[in-house]
Amino acid sequence: MSSKITPVYGPTNPSPEKFAKMKIKRYGSIIGLKPEKEQYYRQLHSSTWPKVLERLKKSNIQNYSIYIGELEGKKYLFSYFEYTGDNFEKDMQLIAADPETQRWWKETDPCQRQLPNRKEGQNWSDLELVFLMAKM
Amino acid sequence: MSSKITPVYGPTNPSPEKFAKMKIKRYGSIIGLKPEKEQYYRQLHSSTWPKVLERLKKSNIQNYSIYIGELEGKKYLFSYFEYTGDNFEKDMQLIAADPETQRWWKETDPCQRQLPNRKEGQNWSDLELVFLMAKM
Repeated sequence: MSSKITPVYGPTNPSPEKFAKMKIKRYGSIIGLKPEKEQYYRQLHSSTWPKVLERLKKSNIQNYSIYIGELEGKKYLFSYFEYTGDNFEKDMQLIAADPETQRWWKETDPCQRQLPNRKEGQNWSDLELVFLMAKM
Repeated sequence: MSSKITPVYGPTNPSPEKFAKMKIKRYGSIIGLKPEKEQYYRQLHSSTWPKVLERLKKSNIQNYSIYIGELEGKKYLFSYFEYTGDNFEKDMQLIAADPETQRWWKETDPCQRQLPNRKEGQNWSDLELVFLMAKM
């Protein structure tokens, strides 16, 4: 299987050690989108609840974007965000513990189709960063 | 088909008109990755040729990252970048006309598997932005 291929790390393909030292950490992730819920998912995100955004910002998330794409006949969501804090785990826990975010997830979770390669306790599946050209 | 669902545009789900006026335009895209070429693709991107990066920067591209993911048993590449110029078409043409970039693409193109829903003349397939939370 291709998953046995050893990652190759270099100056623009940060190793886990280099990633940990970055001031701005980029995260890409993916999840399925149920086609019958696409309309509702779009509606929700056309006016994301302000307190949900506030909680993300308090947890040092910035430049957060989500994209819809179709692949081999199925719909997927791709997300990109930047994390600028120094305690990712804790900041994520604070998001997960936020009552308004929990209410938001009650709406968004049923729109999504979880993929087999997600980490335990996560909805979205992590992608692996292989190239980075940051700002000049 | 799900593709008949009408897009919903709102303040955080930019309409084409709003997108056109944004100072920083985010682009997400996707392409297949041939599993037997993953190792070489990673090697190439562990030290991307400096002139290729230079050309991207001259064409007003910033915060460019590429991710590898596996979906339903197949490998894909996801890319995110920001465009800060005011003539996207022209800037892309200048990239495509750059001899060093053309040499680079001779290496990267055979690693990729084009998807049916790409635009004519493009390698990568566009994703559609449905959520955006920019910087505070």
